[in-house]
Amino acid sequence: MITQPILLNDAEIELLQQQVGTSTLMGRTIEAHCKAVDAFMALPLDVPGHGEAGGYEHNRHKQNYTYMNLAGRLFLITRQEKYGQFVRDLLALYAEKYLTFDFHVQKNTNPTGRLFHQILNEHCWLMFTSLAYSCVAETMTADERDAVVKGVFEPMLDMFTVKYAHDFDRIHNHGIWAVAAVGICGLAIGKPEYLEMSVYGIDRNDTGGFLAQISQLFAPSGYYMEGPYYHRYAIRPLCVLAEVVHRHMPELDIYNYKNQVIGNTVQALLSTAYPNGEFPALNDASRTMSITDMGVQVAVSLYSQHYGMDDNILGMAKIQDSVWMHPCGLALSNAYEAATQEREIGLPFWPSTELSEGPKGHNGAQGFMRMQDATGDVTQLVMNYGQHGMGHGNFDTLGITFFNRGQEVLREYGFCRWVNVEPKFGGRYLDENKSYARQTIAHNAITIDETCQNHFDVERADSVHGLPHFFIADNDTIKGMSAFANDHYDNVDMQRSVFMLALDELEAPLLIDIYRIDSEDGQTHQYDYSHQYDGQLVRTNFAYSCDSELQTLGHDAGYQHLWKVASGEVTEPNALVSWLQNNTYYTWLGTSSNEKQDVIFTRTGANDPSFNLRSEPAFMLRSHGASSVFASVLETHGYFNEEFEQSVNARGQVKQVRIVGSSKVGTVIEVLTQNSKVTLMVSNILGAKENTPHLTQIDGTTYSWDGFYSLEVTALNHSVEK
Amino acid sequence: MITQPILLNDAEIELLQQQVGTSTLMGRTIEAHCKAVDAFMALPLDVPGHGEAGGYEHNRHKQNYTYMNLAGRLFLITRQEKYGQFVRDLLALYAEKYLTFDFHVQKNTNPTGRLFHQILNEHCWLMFTSLAYSCVAETMTADERDAVVKGVFEPMLDMFTVKYAHDFDRIHNHGIWAVAAVGICGLAIGKPEYLEMSVYGIDRNDTGGFLAQISQLFAPSGYYMEGPYYHRYAIRPLCVLAEVVHRHMPELDIYNYKNQVIGNTVQALLSTAYPNGEFPALNDASRTMSITDMGVQVAVSLYSQHYGMDDNILGMAKIQDSVWMHPCGLALSNAYEAATQEREIGLPFWPSTELSEGPKGHNGAQGFMRMQDATGDVTQLVMNYGQHGMGHGNFDTLGITFFNRGQEVLREYGFCRWVNVEPKFGGRYLDENKSYARQTIAHNAITIDETCQNHFDVERADSVHGLPHFFIADNDTIKGMSAFANDHYDNVDMQRSVFMLALDELEAPLLIDIYRIDSEDGQTHQYDYSHQYDGQLVRTNFAYSCDSELQTLGHDAGYQHLWKVASGEVTEPNALVSWLQNNTYYTWLGTSSNEKQDVIFTRTGANDPSFNLRSEPAFMLRSHGASSVFASVLETHGYFNEEFEQSVNARGQVKQVRIVGSSKVGTVIEVLTQNSKVTLMVSNILGAKENTPHLTQIDGTTYSWDGFYSLEVTALNHSVEK
Repeated sequence: MITQPILLNDAEIELLQQQVGTSTLMGRTIEAHCKAVDAFMALPLDVPGHGEAGGYEHNRHKQNYTYMNLAGRLFLITRQEKYGQFVRDLLALYAEKYLTFDFHVQKNTNPTGRLFHQILNEHCWLMFTSLAYSCVAETMTADERDAVVKGVFEPMLDMFTVKYAHDFDRIHNHGIWAVAAVGICGLAIGKPEYLEMSVYGIDRNDTGGFLAQISQLFAPSGYYMEGPYYHRYAIRPLCVLAEVVHRHMPELDIYNYKNQVIGNTVQALLSTAYPNGEFPALNDASRTMSITDMGVQVAVSLYSQHYGMDDNILGMAKIQDSVWMHPCGLALSNAYEAATQEREIGLPFWPSTELSEGPKGHNGAQGFMRMQDATGDVTQLVMNYGQHGMGHGNFDTLGITFFNRGQEVLREYGFCRWVNVEPKFGGRYLDENKSYARQTIAHNAITIDETCQNHFDVERADSVHGLPHFFIADNDTIKGMSAFANDHYDNVDMQRSVFMLALDELEAPLLIDIYRIDSEDGQTHQYDYSHQYDGQLVRTNFAYSCDSELQTLGHDAGYQHLWKVASGEVTEPNALVSWLQNNTYYTWLGTSSNEKQDVIFTRTGANDPSFNLRSEPAFMLRSHGASSVFASVLETHGYFNEEFEQSVNARGQVKQVRIVGSSKVGTVIEVLTQNSKVTLMVSNILGAKENTPHLTQIDGTTYSWDGFYSLEVTALNHSVEK
Repeated sequence: MITQPILLNDAEIELLQQQVGTSTLMGRTIEAHCKAVDAFMALPLDVPGHGEAGGYEHNRHKQNYTYMNLAGRLFLITRQEKYGQFVRDLLALYAEKYLTFDFHVQKNTNPTGRLFHQILNEHCWLMFTSLAYSCVAETMTADERDAVVKGVFEPMLDMFTVKYAHDFDRIHNHGIWAVAAVGICGLAIGKPEYLEMSVYGIDRNDTGGFLAQISQLFAPSGYYMEGPYYHRYAIRPLCVLAEVVHRHMPELDIYNYKNQVIGNTVQALLSTAYPNGEFPALNDASRTMSITDMGVQVAVSLYSQHYGMDDNILGMAKIQDSVWMHPCGLALSNAYEAATQEREIGLPFWPSTELSEGPKGHNGAQGFMRMQDATGDVTQLVMNYGQHGMGHGNFDTLGITFFNRGQEVLREYGFCRWVNVEPKFGGRYLDENKSYARQTIAHNAITIDETCQNHFDVERADSVHGLPHFFIADNDTIKGMSAFANDHYDNVDMQRSVFMLALDELEAPLLIDIYRIDSEDGQTHQYDYSHQYDGQLVRTNFAYSCDSELQTLGHDAGYQHLWKVASGEVTEPNALVSWLQNNTYYTWLGTSSNEKQDVIFTRTGANDPSFNLRSEPAFMLRSHGASSVFASVLETHGYFNEEFEQSVNARGQVKQVRIVGSSKVGTVIEVLTQNSKVTLMVSNILGAKENTPHLTQIDGTTYSWDGFYSLEVTALNHSVEK
């Protein structure tokens, strides 16, 4: 029997053929792919030898498999012979040359391939070209097929499953690429035993293979511990192999396997994204990765076909403006067309979600909280109170990011790396990734005594995690989450409670942040409550002096990379820092329970001998004390357009944030706005329940409430209780 | 007779009515205006009292006239009563309140109004509301009309032409607003004598009034000495009043007045724009002003109706995605519809143009040079060798900017000001505008001895100008311009020659820059050849050390605002600095004829006590010598996309730039690329002509050519002469 297309049957091909030339998502996807492949086919074929990561050769091999993968399907869908010819010719060239290439010299811990410096890339090559081959094999002579199978496919299978057998089917995001490549290639060359091996693992126990991977790589919530950036990288082979298994091993009922673990983890990945489709750069990640990534396109299409369609999925398809060129994508495209006839599909407004971490979901969580303002804009607040992300883990438990109006406001620096930029250390991680980007000071958290959480000790960090306190998102006025991190600094417990509050007088949800520190031994520490922002400083309510020579703020833990630009002592009850980021003003008001407080303005770039860091501003509220409370609010307000010379509401409505007091039982803060007094009482009792009564006396006043927190808004003699 | 619409007749109104609900440019313009006005009308009417510049009151008055202006025409075009009602009600409110407001307290040299802190804004108010009134007057009772005329229009006319008569019709960009307001209001209230006064001036001689203004404000080239930013501000009342005069004083034949001065100056304004529609921020200007500005929309529509339509005008309409809601705009919309049926309208590719300065065109020029690459992308090079822009003038003669791939690469800082941002000094110019933004060091030029051109003396600067040498743009391989600035530094003459060279092996035109300095008295100076760039440094070909404490680079002339971030001595024949700006790599190679050269990396932000400056990087090649030559090339290459993790051609093709030699007659440089040797010989003879023979000996080799320059490209033993 001659190989048939692995992912498509004849009836499906016909349906896709009908999409050619239409203006549907699928029609436009096909057209865009044709254009891209045509442009690449205009270049002479090239199968180059060794090169460096990020260099021409590396990129060329990657382009070769990317375009073969598309061309294989385009051959079937457009019925244009040139696409088949391209795949056949290029495969023949690989078949001719592959075994003449020796293995790369090993430069890091990853095994090397003959095409690429690490076999991960060779796995990608094999998965995509096997799919392409399956689309054109029928049009090849027996000799041609034989040349490809013997010249490149079988040697690769051998390399992956024999030479590097120890590394083949392990439970790791790279492992999914390995099993997908081997399983799919096996099918393509008529050796389904490789698919079996991939699915069940070489040893056929639960230590390897696809089923073990999807059972064990993700938390029950579907979250992947290395974060969305690595998750979206693994999701592509995961989805492609799942669809292959669905078609070729239907008896496994893969989409219902383990309580629909595949749908669950796709859903978890999607639910981390910011409203504009970008992924929060949790754990050592690019700041620019978004749901338009091809892997996520495959995942969204697959999800919509096998797990259901709703307006958030359609909204994501709208951002992607493309679908997987596959029957799954056709289902999504059809649904999108039908929906847009009826109504306008907006941007997705994903529900707030707390994604637990750890194999049983007991190692803390990542919180993703969202609220929509009157204009429909979505504000998203992300807090990390989960576990350490293995080798990629940042030391940022209780760190937050905050996003609205299309931009990240309290910002994650992301990794320090220029992927594939060859002159920047071959596109690999740069030294400053460790010395700055992964340090606590880079992460909108409180850094204690200018040290990093867990002393930047990966092993220690892997052994601890955040302790979830509450995550309550079912109220339209206030949503909040709180967690403890008691093991991340020696002798210090920390609790952070963050809320989004909707007030009629405010344009957008107000971020309220209460950061409590418990010095177990009563020792005094230095606390730097840092805020990574972007844009132009507009005003403060305290005098500051700009330094006439710049020094670094410190010597270690990331501080050596911060220029101390300016500083001032806080003289009002709270510090006010207001800035302009693109078209929006933000005003931050913050205070602490300690007597003396300073605001320090910094900028990254010190001790950066190769200009590896981006130059970015931040400010921190610094104070010294033993047990302490920090509280702040961040108001989003106004509009500025330089081109149209418009500026509206440049000052905002919030006047003050005040720490009323804090005890073992709870913390009480007060926020004054133009028209309202907001009182917020928050439980400090780890282990409290939804109805636990709280009673505490502060300065002679008794505060009592049931459950995790209580909000009181007094407006014009009018009080609303929650 | 009751006032009729001043800018529209019945037949035209009917044609515009037919556009409602269509998808043409005009149809969409009407729809967008309806949406904007509807949103504003949803707010309660408000005519507030005094406020500060940029504050609520200021903005509210501005919004009031902006939306009345639109609503008046929408009333006629959509036939919806609500728009007429809005104009009538709001005008009635102004009529009731206007005289109860006292004049603002005067804070700067401008006379104050009753609504605004300067009458300029009150002129705007009057022009727009008079037009709006003319659209609805017919639907008002005599009493209602009388209230508006007596309560606000006549008092304003009186204020402008009697109280502030001395300031009324002067030849200044503000003056055009004054005469447009007064003339149009006169028509609106049935007193055409005010239009006469506006057109001919109060004194009816050539010292004031519209005709004198348009005759004298612009150079014969149409260029306005304060630059495009102020030009586009003046162009709106100019065009509106021109169209009014065209309709109400047809005997003046205004569009043919003085060799079509109106068309000429509109054309000049448009021809300065970068390919994306943004204006180069020449002379103290915003970096974000573009042709989508409403005034430029009016100008483009008017130009297309009265002076002709071509694909560049249509391309601008495409960027604007809107037209003037007027018969002129309808003509453009119709032409655009017709053209897009036939062909794809691309972005404009305006011809290269040299715009002379001064009343007779003898005070130097501004050069705007453009070249298109194989992908259609337009590279634009701008050099200032004209006159000083009066009070707004920057001290940057021979400064350049360079733009391609949608971004300014060698960058103009723009003004130091946040227009209308009230907490930033009321949106006015900030101190750092003088101390940094207007200084020579901020402008991609050579700063001598850490001083500013003309010692920052406006009067001295006004008395000198650049001396054009050549501007040759009729060759597809190389385009170049050259000029002298002999009066801008004491005892030093300067010549800068800049070229764009197209080579097949390069993706985009190569910028070649030859900067020659003639130390008349043989004295040695310090030369800082500075480059304001943006993005991330990728590599250099010299070692540099990053400072562990930052000091300012100097004490004056803008240097006090520069942090010295890093520096290194040039060890190769030339310095290489390569950076990544968004998706594109840029590699600069530079050298000088002096022995020792250093590259210094800087960043703005020092001595900036209120964070008024943006933090931006730059680098300079510093050397010391008497007469000197500097030469550099800037290559545009490759592609980076962080989201898709793509990086292509990160290193570029150019290998070296070398100064062969320089004499009184000419300068010879050589550029080596991967495949070519480029020799460029440039005339140093001020006053040379197109056919002047040049002969010079350098190191025993004779170089001879006729005319301003000669290019020789040797590629693979193959030589092309120009």
